Amino acid sequence: MNAPIGVFDSGVGGLTVAREIMRQLPEENLVYFGDTARVPYGTKSKETVIRYSKQIIRFLLSKGVKAIVIACNTASAVCLPELAALYDVPIIGVVEPGANSAAKATKNKNIGIIGTNGTVKSGVYTKLLRKKDPEITVVTKACPLFVPLVEEGLIDDRITEDVTQRYLSELKGYDIDALVLGCTHYPLLMNPIGHYMGEKVTLVNPAYETAKTLKATLNEKNIANTEGNGGNHEYYVSDMVEQFLTFADRVLPCHVDKVNDIEIEKY
Amino acid sequence: MNAPIGVFDSGVGGLTVAREIMRQLPEENLVYFGDTARVPYGTKSKETVIRYSKQIIRFLLSKGVKAIVIACNTASAVCLPELAALYDVPIIGVVEPGANSAAKATKNKNIGIIGTNGTVKSGVYTKLLRKKDPEITVVTKACPLFVPLVEEGLIDDRITEDVTQRYLSELKGYDIDALVLGCTHYPLLMNPIGHYMGEKVTLVNPAYETAKTLKATLNEKNIANTEGNGGNHEYYVSDMVEQFLTFADRVLPCHVDKVNDIEIEKY
Repeated sequence: MNAPIGVFDSGVGGLTVAREIMRQLPEENLVYFGDTARVPYGTKSKETVIRYSKQIIRFLLSKGVKAIVIACNTASAVCLPELAALYDVPIIGVVEPGANSAAKATKNKNIGIIGTNGTVKSGVYTKLLRKKDPEITVVTKACPLFVPLVEEGLIDDRITEDVTQRYLSELKGYDIDALVLGCTHYPLLMNPIGHYMGEKVTLVNPAYETAKTLKATLNEKNIANTEGNGGNHEYYVSDMVEQFLTFADRVLPCHVDKVNDIEIEKY
Repeated sequence: MNAPIGVFDSGVGGLTVAREIMRQLPEENLVYFGDTARVPYGTKSKETVIRYSKQIIRFLLSKGVKAIVIACNTASAVCLPELAALYDVPIIGVVEPGANSAAKATKNKNIGIIGTNGTVKSGVYTKLLRKKDPEITVVTKACPLFVPLVEEGLIDDRITEDVTQRYLSELKGYDIDALVLGCTHYPLLMNPIGHYMGEKVTLVNPAYETAKTLKATLNEKNIANTEGNGGNHEYYVSDMVEQFLTFADRVLPCHVDKVNDIEIEKY
């Protein structure tokens, strides 16, 4: 089935998830939507995130997608079950795969979760991890400055190192051995986070396990693309085409020529 | 005329402007709208900011406002002339009053402007200042991390001092003697900015002159409230009522009991 996979995020960060899907499922076609007009979602209420996500899903369905990946941790955390129940196509979030990865990675059963205020307040990573193994201890920390720091390009920078230390010093005290990067921008801060936390802490990027889950779902439902006409990627945003292109060139393995600017509120 | 003044901003920052209007025009009624669902505007395109501002103006007009203050620097910078031409009520922005204040404050005619990417890219402060006095030199700098730092509550903090130094060191080299705080959040960073720039640089908060301009406009059009039944303030947001209340308590001289959450997209 050569219908595309729909991938959406509050903005550009979800490209780190799209990148992983392209790597693991190069034969699939993709339609990516980044809600760059209304980014960030991490500071918005649950009701607003659900309303925005529904508009985006209606848009993706109008493009004929056969499955949807919610690349945004906040949207996955606060509204995946509600959304999955509403539509016929399979909808996959990044939180459950992220939790599964972390549970596999930990040995001492102390796991740290970092993300936006929305993701952390939802408590969903903690719930999922405790359900998998009641002996797991979860420590969480919201890190609202990480996204603007990445978007300012301050990756290897003393200010980012200071902010990292400020946010993570408490987590470090809990003897965690796995840390979930629970926001799509955070894998871009692997260096300062990894350097501060030290080699004994495994950094978990939920994107890897999300792409694996997507692959298994497509096979299970017998809708993987086996027609040999895949690898086409379309990009849509709600604003700021130029900035999207710049970010895409930093993140994706391929150059993006064209991005379509749409009015998402109409969907 | 006891009809209210409409004041709007991309979020909570415009309360620093509402505060100044309350001080200078205590007899007026106010309707404040903060677009907390879609904040920030500083990273959005001109077209999007215009579309959002039109929705908000339609909402404020439905509340019977007699005049509108665009408390948001970005919206004032990118779309005030277009909006002012479309509606019958007077619409006042913060940029022209801010430029007037700066022109009065400078002695050596070297002025600095700091604001969001949207405000700085618009170049509108520079245009207005040069029109007033072609001998004025304007140096601008976008400071995207200042808003998230304020919203994280990191006001008197070493990280904010470092970011301030990073953003303002170039401006400092230009021998400016007036610096426009061209974003409604920035007056809350008066301390670190003032400390870094030194006593010789006057920090210009456009809110003060904006309230003065509003007063003059109401008098000129003969629509000031002289009926003695004023001082009522209503608050509306598009999301996150609790956070608005917390911020309002930090900024306003009076306690806010009630905030109404509305769906601004319907206007």
